[in-house]
Amino acid sequence: MTTAPTGLPMTVPADGLPARVRIHEVGARDGLQNEQGVVPTEVKAEFIRRLAGAGLSTIEATSFVHPKWVPQLADAEKLFPMVRDIPVGLPVLVPNERGLDRALALGAREVAVFASATESFAKANLNRTVDEALAMFAPVVTRAVEHGLTVRGYLSMCFGDPWEGPVPVGQVVAVCRRLKDMGCDELSLGDTIGVATPGHVTRLLTALNEAGVPTDTLAVHFHDTYGQALANTLAALQHGVTTVDASAGGLGGCPYAKSATGNLATEDLVWMLHGLGIETGVDLGRLTATSVWLAGQLGRPSPSRTVRALGGAASHKES
Amino acid sequence: MTTAPTGLPMTVPADGLPARVRIHEVGARDGLQNEQGVVPTEVKAEFIRRLAGAGLSTIEATSFVHPKWVPQLADAEKLFPMVRDIPVGLPVLVPNERGLDRALALGAREVAVFASATESFAKANLNRTVDEALAMFAPVVTRAVEHGLTVRGYLSMCFGDPWEGPVPVGQVVAVCRRLKDMGCDELSLGDTIGVATPGHVTRLLTALNEAGVPTDTLAVHFHDTYGQALANTLAALQHGVTTVDASAGGLGGCPYAKSATGNLATEDLVWMLHGLGIETGVDLGRLTATSVWLAGQLGRPSPSRTVRALGGAASHKES
Repeated sequence: MTTAPTGLPMTVPADGLPARVRIHEVGARDGLQNEQGVVPTEVKAEFIRRLAGAGLSTIEATSFVHPKWVPQLADAEKLFPMVRDIPVGLPVLVPNERGLDRALALGAREVAVFASATESFAKANLNRTVDEALAMFAPVVTRAVEHGLTVRGYLSMCFGDPWEGPVPVGQVVAVCRRLKDMGCDELSLGDTIGVATPGHVTRLLTALNEAGVPTDTLAVHFHDTYGQALANTLAALQHGVTTVDASAGGLGGCPYAKSATGNLATEDLVWMLHGLGIETGVDLGRLTATSVWLAGQLGRPSPSRTVRALGGAASHKES
Repeated sequence: MTTAPTGLPMTVPADGLPARVRIHEVGARDGLQNEQGVVPTEVKAEFIRRLAGAGLSTIEATSFVHPKWVPQLADAEKLFPMVRDIPVGLPVLVPNERGLDRALALGAREVAVFASATESFAKANLNRTVDEALAMFAPVVTRAVEHGLTVRGYLSMCFGDPWEGPVPVGQVVAVCRRLKDMGCDELSLGDTIGVATPGHVTRLLTALNEAGVPTDTLAVHFHDTYGQALANTLAALQHGVTTVDASAGGLGGCPYAKSATGNLATEDLVWMLHGLGIETGVDLGRLTATSVWLAGQLGRPSPSRTVRALGGAASHKES
């Protein structure tokens, strides 16, 4: 088992931060969907089992998109039944009613739709306008709610867009409002290309509150492309956000960003949260060992700084 | 010239932050002293020239330690005259009176001593107790002040120590007080192994204020071993710190930490500061191009996330 140096990080709380944060772990879906090679379904299932064993309570499992779109997740029908009895939240992505039908048939209890704050990314990712994409999601959300499912709305490009540059805060708020009105329980604000800085985070969260979207229905989803993810997370925590998306080992990333770095690494997040005395339920040693194990399966090192710093021991002691 | 995506980062100020930050650039000294191979003196001089050209106003140039201790900086006598007319601050490290004599003979105007908050690191780095090291520095500081030099006191292991674990805040404050009483103009608080988290940063800064050490005489020096450096910097800025140490391209690191990652990358810092509307005087494009150029000289990529994200263009356009 991997452990940090004895007694480190030192636990020193800061004023005005939440007592507990729920980590929405996206490595098994967002992380693995960007892998070049095929990851065996059994490895994915074992990854999810180990993440649950490390104490993560929400683990995004897979995506019921058309296999043609994301071939890496074409095994959703095979994978989901292998993990659905693990006693954690296991949200799955559903782009449309067909995807929802597949998720319902397998007993999924939490689903997510994925919208864009910008027209350029809606076109690139969904081949639709923002309006057309929202029209596609509306019946999905309605029916999911009718079935008693929890529904998350992802919103990409909330801070900057590779084609459009800065994204106006009002534009993001407008799409968020529509996703809330549609019935989404939670919105995840994505900095898909990693360009946000802390003041921008605070301004968007404040604008959303002013538009009637309460902070406790918001999650943040930062990418570390420019090294800003954890500082942005601190700003979000200071605003009262208690749900943070992260990816074990820093797996994944946006294919439109020029960098190999991607999602905020769960281990780096947990290091900060535990240093701040914020409960997560996660065992950092077991989590790091899980990322070291997966890196071995994928044949390359983890981009997480914490995993690299702690991983030497784990790679020998955990197989 | 390297540039960020048009209009990014978006400038969105946050409440309670300074209008301007001085970056104390340590790449040419702290960064290069950890290189395995010999870096030609002309490359070091050109690196410093380019850093100045990118707008950095304080560039630590070299160290007048005994060449036996740090062979990578054995060319200090040759290097310093090559750069001393560049119109920026060019502090140099001096461990003892012999080092100060060498620095004075070459016309240095700013010097730094380097103490440790822990006995273990004082022993490892200086082969002395904390008291013995301070006794060695006292006449150096006194004489430097008499010569009208600006004196910085570095303090290592302010948050955690690889042998001792957590370092009590009171122990750090006590050594800081002694360095101030000795005559140091500025103290740089080093998280040498990168284990600090934001609440710990705030607590140390508060304790220093309570002990009569004003924030405007403090600098922070964070390492990114666990990915925490920029979040910790944000906490320090929120406390009022306006001097931040960083290393172009993220060069350097502590040989006692298990990770290859080291100093906070200046580019990642500048991205955040400019996003927050905080003036630095730095041209991020020119700085990134400088780090890409140096990476070419060193034969390996920069660990800075911002350099990796922006560097593709620079490596073709700048030589």
